[in-house]
Amino acid sequence: MMMTVKDMARSIAPLSDDYLDKAQRRLDNLTKPPGSLGKLEAIARRYAAIRETVDPSITKKVIVTFAGDHGIVAKGVSAYPREVTIQMVLNMLAGGAAVNVLARHVGAEVTVVDIGVDFDFEPHDGLIVRKVNRGTRDFTEGPAMSNDEALRAIEIGIELAAEYARAGVDIIGTGEMGIGNTTPSTAILSILSSIPVTDITGRGTGIDDQTLNNKIAMIEQGIAVNCPDPREPVDVLAKVGGFEIGGIAGLIIGAAYHRIPVVVDGFISSAGALIAVAMNRTINDYLFYSHLSAEAGHRAMLETLGQKPIMDLDMRLGEGTGSAIAMSVIEGAIKIMTGMATFESAGVDRKLEP
Amino acid sequence: MMMTVKDMARSIAPLSDDYLDKAQRRLDNLTKPPGSLGKLEAIARRYAAIRETVDPSITKKVIVTFAGDHGIVAKGVSAYPREVTIQMVLNMLAGGAAVNVLARHVGAEVTVVDIGVDFDFEPHDGLIVRKVNRGTRDFTEGPAMSNDEALRAIEIGIELAAEYARAGVDIIGTGEMGIGNTTPSTAILSILSSIPVTDITGRGTGIDDQTLNNKIAMIEQGIAVNCPDPREPVDVLAKVGGFEIGGIAGLIIGAAYHRIPVVVDGFISSAGALIAVAMNRTINDYLFYSHLSAEAGHRAMLETLGQKPIMDLDMRLGEGTGSAIAMSVIEGAIKIMTGMATFESAGVDRKLEP
Repeated sequence: MMMTVKDMARSIAPLSDDYLDKAQRRLDNLTKPPGSLGKLEAIARRYAAIRETVDPSITKKVIVTFAGDHGIVAKGVSAYPREVTIQMVLNMLAGGAAVNVLARHVGAEVTVVDIGVDFDFEPHDGLIVRKVNRGTRDFTEGPAMSNDEALRAIEIGIELAAEYARAGVDIIGTGEMGIGNTTPSTAILSILSSIPVTDITGRGTGIDDQTLNNKIAMIEQGIAVNCPDPREPVDVLAKVGGFEIGGIAGLIIGAAYHRIPVVVDGFISSAGALIAVAMNRTINDYLFYSHLSAEAGHRAMLETLGQKPIMDLDMRLGEGTGSAIAMSVIEGAIKIMTGMATFESAGVDRKLEP
Repeated sequence: MMMTVKDMARSIAPLSDDYLDKAQRRLDNLTKPPGSLGKLEAIARRYAAIRETVDPSITKKVIVTFAGDHGIVAKGVSAYPREVTIQMVLNMLAGGAAVNVLARHVGAEVTVVDIGVDFDFEPHDGLIVRKVNRGTRDFTEGPAMSNDEALRAIEIGIELAAEYARAGVDIIGTGEMGIGNTTPSTAILSILSSIPVTDITGRGTGIDDQTLNNKIAMIEQGIAVNCPDPREPVDVLAKVGGFEIGGIAGLIIGAAYHRIPVVVDGFISSAGALIAVAMNRTINDYLFYSHLSAEAGHRAMLETLGQKPIMDLDMRLGEGTGSAIAMSVIEGAIKIMTGMATFESAGVDRKLEP
């Protein structure tokens, strides 16, 4: 890469007040009481400032679902067998997964990126193979991946964002598939927030109490064994992360760099955002957190990120399902900004002077 | 009408457990951890039971925006002049209002029903004129409308629901336009919930402290002058209500009767729901409350209704804007139920036995 990951992340600048103000003025001219569309107005304002136009439109929508396997699954942290990562990737390529249904509903394309599945997929429309390795290693016995592998995962996300920028994509949603991946996500959150593992470990796809206790013990062991440096996000990713989490972090960094708004899905995607934002907090300006996941640690994760989600639908599926639904809300907000009549054009009286 | 309003409301039966169970079984066969789509699953289950099919689809979507004027506006309760009701109806007919933009976004039609505007509109596509009267009377000086007018407003909503049922409409969203209409809505809530007016009166389209105090005083006076009977919802509507609120109540009763799911918009629409639900609490089974409005009393109103909203986007515009956005979420939920692969069809392993 021409630029290091860190330099690129650090180069991302805050949104310009100029565009935020222009967007606000446009919103205030529309035939509605000022501010009465609440979060929709805040979304439109920020979207406009990211795109640096007060006349934005959303035409090309992509949801990028990174898939990877996890060595830690051997330690019994998930309710599903490891093979389900492969099976669900095939299901997504066939269009039968939840993310496909919701993406079709909102007019978005789904791209599945094999960034680390332990399987060789046949070529398929909508599949990009950029495998860093065939799954991570079990992090209770050493780093999940090498530092180079962590950087490579992030770079893959950055490269994809550049490709989407060239293709004129207007908004990118993150997603993931990887049996076991709430475990590395929880580890990343604990390390970067200093919150004890027990306080933020959830049931993922639905584990029982005994498996939950084991999951907590495995995460604690992984952190103790690897001593990740919380000031070095790439080190954290390498020690306890997942390839799909690195891919998401890179996609976020690259999209922000190219001024493409990103919709962040749930718990695992937010772990990717944590890695990116740990390099430069300003990156949050370019992100829309889609929903509050029902996964136990997500509230603390969003608090650590200092962000509020658009929705709370008790979802905990991942894949990009939350991104899809939120993308439609964001598109609605943009259409409000660009498609409504103004007080002047419609001949509507403004508010009475108090 | 063949049936009285009360008889129709009382005839509405709870959803059948049989369809709820069948819908749940269908959801549990889909390639996702059980329950992992949270509220989307609950929405799909209930929608299926309302329609009495586990293979529902949403094709025809209508948002019905009732418009009416309010005598109480003469007492200075709103931030906007009364003429804005007329101007905004014309704006809606021209397609320039927020509800038009969001309805187009989600593929819904908007029908504006003049149920009580103080103006004679020219015939227009998308406009239905069923005027009960040219605005309500100032309720601080006597009832806002006669008992017959209140019944007529409700009947108009019921008649429209029957027409939509014949036209094969799959889902109806409520909406309204009427300068001053948070005032009657707040009065209705206070009467039916016994919550003091001061605790639930909000700023509507954006009034200052002095106007807010006046609004509270006017509502208290209206209740004191008219002595509405909280056990008689039609009496409450007549004494302090609005024609559009009656129309919404009727639309809800009629839609539930014809098993058409209804998306309830914000504060004023929920006041209509309160009137309907006060006749038969089971009607709630047929309603989806779209969002928590930023209007102060809406939280208490939803608590009085015993219901939780789908979203919280800090919106407070009305018109049917919240209905539109929620309609798309509901449609997504239905597509999940009908469009996803099953474990069998996709060859995906089920959850591990604990």
